[in-house]
Amino acid sequence: MEPRSSGVAPGGVSVSAVLPAGGSGERLGGATPKQFCAVQGRPLVSYAVRAMERINWISDIIVVVSPENIETMKTIIEKYGHKRVTVVKGGITRHRSIFNGLKVFAEDEFSCHLLQKPEVVIIHDAVRPFVEEDIVSKVVMAAKEHGAAGAIRPLVSTVIASAADGCLDHSLERARYRASEMPQAFLFDIIYEAYQQCTDYDLDYGTECLHLALKYCKTNAKLVEGTADLWKVTYKRDLYAAESIIKDNLSQQVCVITNVKETLAHVGFLLPESLKSQIKVEAISISLSKNDSHLQNIISGQCYNFVCVNDKRCAIQETQELVDMLEKSNIPLLYPVVLILVHLDSSENNSFSIGMEDLTTIKKFARETKKKNILVYGLLIQHK
Amino acid sequence: MEPRSSGVAPGGVSVSAVLPAGGSGERLGGATPKQFCAVQGRPLVSYAVRAMERINWISDIIVVVSPENIETMKTIIEKYGHKRVTVVKGGITRHRSIFNGLKVFAEDEFSCHLLQKPEVVIIHDAVRPFVEEDIVSKVVMAAKEHGAAGAIRPLVSTVIASAADGCLDHSLERARYRASEMPQAFLFDIIYEAYQQCTDYDLDYGTECLHLALKYCKTNAKLVEGTADLWKVTYKRDLYAAESIIKDNLSQQVCVITNVKETLAHVGFLLPESLKSQIKVEAISISLSKNDSHLQNIISGQCYNFVCVNDKRCAIQETQELVDMLEKSNIPLLYPVVLILVHLDSSENNSFSIGMEDLTTIKKFARETKKKNILVYGLLIQHK
Repeated sequence: MEPRSSGVAPGGVSVSAVLPAGGSGERLGGATPKQFCAVQGRPLVSYAVRAMERINWISDIIVVVSPENIETMKTIIEKYGHKRVTVVKGGITRHRSIFNGLKVFAEDEFSCHLLQKPEVVIIHDAVRPFVEEDIVSKVVMAAKEHGAAGAIRPLVSTVIASAADGCLDHSLERARYRASEMPQAFLFDIIYEAYQQCTDYDLDYGTECLHLALKYCKTNAKLVEGTADLWKVTYKRDLYAAESIIKDNLSQQVCVITNVKETLAHVGFLLPESLKSQIKVEAISISLSKNDSHLQNIISGQCYNFVCVNDKRCAIQETQELVDMLEKSNIPLLYPVVLILVHLDSSENNSFSIGMEDLTTIKKFARETKKKNILVYGLLIQHK
Repeated sequence: MEPRSSGVAPGGVSVSAVLPAGGSGERLGGATPKQFCAVQGRPLVSYAVRAMERINWISDIIVVVSPENIETMKTIIEKYGHKRVTVVKGGITRHRSIFNGLKVFAEDEFSCHLLQKPEVVIIHDAVRPFVEEDIVSKVVMAAKEHGAAGAIRPLVSTVIASAADGCLDHSLERARYRASEMPQAFLFDIIYEAYQQCTDYDLDYGTECLHLALKYCKTNAKLVEGTADLWKVTYKRDLYAAESIIKDNLSQQVCVITNVKETLAHVGFLLPESLKSQIKVEAISISLSKNDSHLQNIISGQCYNFVCVNDKRCAIQETQELVDMLEKSNIPLLYPVVLILVHLDSSENNSFSIGMEDLTTIKKFARETKKKNILVYGLLIQHK
């Protein structure tokens, strides 16, 4: 769970990622390129970066943007606390941008940035926000074995070829073909060799990296069936869909916070186990401190719901610290944060160890935080 | 604007439509086939039917559903007041369902339903809710000329062919291919002939009608570039997108209601003209009567915002009638309805002709209707 990368992938290879984010998004309509469009207040590219960042064996994440967007991208990295990211200036086409991204690992002209060359490089789109570790891992493993690999999906529509007169020439048998999606991965030396050999025509008019590996290095990429969530944000309707999916995700993530005391740690273990069939338990923390970088990462990772288990009579002070952190993060400006305080009462007598005075304090506290869009609920559990 | 069909298309041909709606929607996940999934409380198929129904030169709309959904479909037709629709029992595959839909126009075994054979038949998916008259018209005209025609879209992803070992065989040059979408249209005799000649293999494993017209009738379909909104609801994210698009549409539709008096009719003409750059003016009605089928059609057509222009001192009674109609339609259960009452004051003196008492009445009325999710606002315009 350590968010800082160890840089070692399941197969023991070193892995980095290149995210081309230089497109103009003309199919979307509107002036903002789609990768910079806000979804739930956060630019799309930030979701894709986060998806990569969460995979702790990816060493470096290269985001390639057009020259005019370099400052925008740097601001995004700063604002959302992205780590391990290097911003690189893109070329005029997708292939030229990816090539620039790869050069960071290999060429002297980029020496001020020169990063350690990975064995396998992932190429993923900045406009595919929902990639999961599982598929990235599969593609990386397949690339290690075959030299190149890419995620594929069944075709949604029949593909047809048109004749010069604008009439149907022939239709393709749908079952024999697949849509080529992202992520893709390559042995670094293969894809870099392919780009070095690549004609200007291919650099200017091609889009498919798997094609370059085949054409210039005779490497037949392994095709890996991907999940439905790999789709690319292309049209305005895709932004709507992304927004709804992110909203759905938000409400299903919870972080359980407890402390090191035995009973509580036990509850902290049992609770996520029983919760996880209902909602996504994002992380478990055993501390609740302003200086806990783990907790900070949870918050910047967009986990906005917390269950705090304690056995103190009134844990307002710790809760106040969490509320302060959340407030400082600016998250509650956009989304309601749910905070459930679980008071574990293990006293021997039958009466509750929490008194009216404490209840009043909690109620008052909840009223105050509600104004900040942080919803505090209390739960008292008696156990012997 | 007469919603009942005249049955004559721009090219003078007679046109009917077949909507296959028999799919199981397995790619969507969940038990409900996607065409019956609710989007803003209304099944997806109802949007597609409405899209066809709005085109007044389409004579008959045949919806083909699997046997277990016939009653569901009839209930939907009843509930949303769909007209010109015939429900037909589908087959076990898409092609068999479409063939069943076509038989209604041609075969004795369906004689209890036998409908007049159209010159051109449109085939459209029940899960493509946003088709506009413009593209339908283009496809119909092209079908009349070429025998067959279909909407196409650029490919979003590169299409690749895989070899037997699951590796890349080759990728297709994206620019040379297109995605085949709906609507499609055919001279009835051509597509019916194609289905009659069709092998069982094609009926069971094929999906592309244009392919059948080519294979069995040597008809090369004309390909017509479609708009982005022709996409097919396939995955859960598409339902989210559809919902957002429909919500967007709703808030941008308004119906202006005025009466036959000269001044008001003039305002009723000028107002939509100046509004239409901002929002979609769906219809203009000059009456506000319970028995006005035009107004009923506007309401069932999901136009939920009204501007009522009057010059009476207090037009509460007419407004009450509209509120009654809206309430009866069950729309405000799901969506807020906005109703703006414009009082046009053309009296000669400078004081407003509307008094405190009338204002109080209107305020009270607005408070009452708000409980029903109908939001009434008043606007007083003095003009001389």
